[in-house]
Amino acid sequence: MKQYIYGVDIGGTNIKLGLFKENTLELIESREIKTPTEHQEVSIFEHIALEIQTMNQHHQISFDDLLGIGLAVPCPVKNGFVQKCPNLNWQTMDITKNMSLFLPGNVTVKVSNDATLAALGENNSLERPFQNAILFTLGTGVGGGVIIDGQILEGGTGLGGEIGHIPIPFETDELCGCGSKGCLEQVCGTKAIFKKTRLLAQTLPTSIHLDHLTVKAIFDAAKENDPVGLEVVHGVAKAIAYSASILAVVLDPEVFILGGGVSKAGQFLVDLIEQYYQPYARFHTGSVPFILAKTGNNAGIIGAAHYLKK
Amino acid sequence: MKQYIYGVDIGGTNIKLGLFKENTLELIESREIKTPTEHQEVSIFEHIALEIQTMNQHHQISFDDLLGIGLAVPCPVKNGFVQKCPNLNWQTMDITKNMSLFLPGNVTVKVSNDATLAALGENNSLERPFQNAILFTLGTGVGGGVIIDGQILEGGTGLGGEIGHIPIPFETDELCGCGSKGCLEQVCGTKAIFKKTRLLAQTLPTSIHLDHLTVKAIFDAAKENDPVGLEVVHGVAKAIAYSASILAVVLDPEVFILGGGVSKAGQFLVDLIEQYYQPYARFHTGSVPFILAKTGNNAGIIGAAHYLKK
Repeated sequence: MKQYIYGVDIGGTNIKLGLFKENTLELIESREIKTPTEHQEVSIFEHIALEIQTMNQHHQISFDDLLGIGLAVPCPVKNGFVQKCPNLNWQTMDITKNMSLFLPGNVTVKVSNDATLAALGENNSLERPFQNAILFTLGTGVGGGVIIDGQILEGGTGLGGEIGHIPIPFETDELCGCGSKGCLEQVCGTKAIFKKTRLLAQTLPTSIHLDHLTVKAIFDAAKENDPVGLEVVHGVAKAIAYSASILAVVLDPEVFILGGGVSKAGQFLVDLIEQYYQPYARFHTGSVPFILAKTGNNAGIIGAAHYLKK
Repeated sequence: MKQYIYGVDIGGTNIKLGLFKENTLELIESREIKTPTEHQEVSIFEHIALEIQTMNQHHQISFDDLLGIGLAVPCPVKNGFVQKCPNLNWQTMDITKNMSLFLPGNVTVKVSNDATLAALGENNSLERPFQNAILFTLGTGVGGGVIIDGQILEGGTGLGGEIGHIPIPFETDELCGCGSKGCLEQVCGTKAIFKKTRLLAQTLPTSIHLDHLTVKAIFDAAKENDPVGLEVVHGVAKAIAYSASILAVVLDPEVFILGGGVSKAGQFLVDLIEQYYQPYARFHTGSVPFILAKTGNNAGIIGAAHYLKK
């Protein structure tokens, strides 16, 4: 009986594994292990297989009880293939095959990009999942995932949904890691947020402690009308709203979901984004709601499990 | 034997009908009739059914020989439903059902947006169709269609692929028909092109005859280094390149196809777009080619036939 699914989220630092019931996708147990740093094209899969074996034993199940294993990886993926994954030192590789080498032949493996699968995980964790949804992952970097007609968008080469690199024609002309200037990530990534905060603090009064900068402190200050906090937070909200208005006419989503550390600013951020979004929104796209992600760090493993089940 | 398919492209002025072989999708015959102007929620379908009957008789086939009828319509469509179609005075309506009322019960009807189906038609007319393609339709208005994993993108409400309304942060702050400012259509639509040409001609020397403005004349002048022609055409190329660079990181297409009247400027326009596109392009998306559409006014009927067959 194929009663269980593993969802695995491979990050540069940690690998998260979740054991799910196949029918309800209820999370039975989740664990984290350190991402091995040597020979990652082999070691990562070996460690995952070993940890799954341990979890299997703990729950008295066997590989025969698994419908399969879904993998979320931090790089563009197309049909299970990766060209380059700087976070993990992977080069051109068949991820599905490399994982399967450490598993019995009857265990299915499916793999896609982590932010893309996080979008699937967040959307499918809603009381009523949408058919068309866009997730912003607002962290150190800014990424995203796109769900169209219930399916993940990988695009032609796995780069689909890289919404952190939509150009923002205001706020920034900072050079981005992608080599271009003015990307959304250069306004809304935590690094950009900290940089702008420090810059503004040179000329504006602020209560924000610059020695121990956190996104939370900046948003908390903004809520108290701190001039620096306000300007930073308005810039973030405006840039997200602007990029969302473009995504709306291209993809016609039913919802925008805000995830990642920056989204912990909560309803305050949502309200500001909505305020900037309305004048940007074309046609009836002004009615597309912004909501906060709920599954936190579990989005990847949940999405990977859902993807495996599809 | 279901050996034939009709592809029908409903426009505000004309309705084009194509009879296709089911297996090869070879176009056997195409006809155009005037779009009836009264009671369009009924008359359009009545006229189409009558014309199909006539074409059937001409080719000695019957409705039993049809796999079905694909319809391309000039408005957002979702699952065969339209909310509002200003071009045809349609309000909330089940297009599939209204068409079926005039057909024998066993004839399948499928319907979607005309630019979206044109994208399918253009892409599937390539020697090797791509799985992920974006069509720009550059005419009076600017529209587009998106193909993802071989499927058309309708989006949540049928508005998917409205790429003519991507905001362009340079060149224009003209008010668009959509109610917003600075849309791609306000740079690259023929109306915008003519307006800018007239404006520039007030201050720059030009050989372009302003009394009989055509897009062809403007591009021809640009090729001869006419100052006004050059500035207009560079503006068009830059705006298309900019919007394509956004679409590239969101959708990760394998090709951009340029269709509509403005694309008749040919390789000259393609080369200019490529030139502007390269510095905008993020990651490896600079390698996505721009190609010219080939099927002309037949894109809609071809796409409708392909959609029906899917």
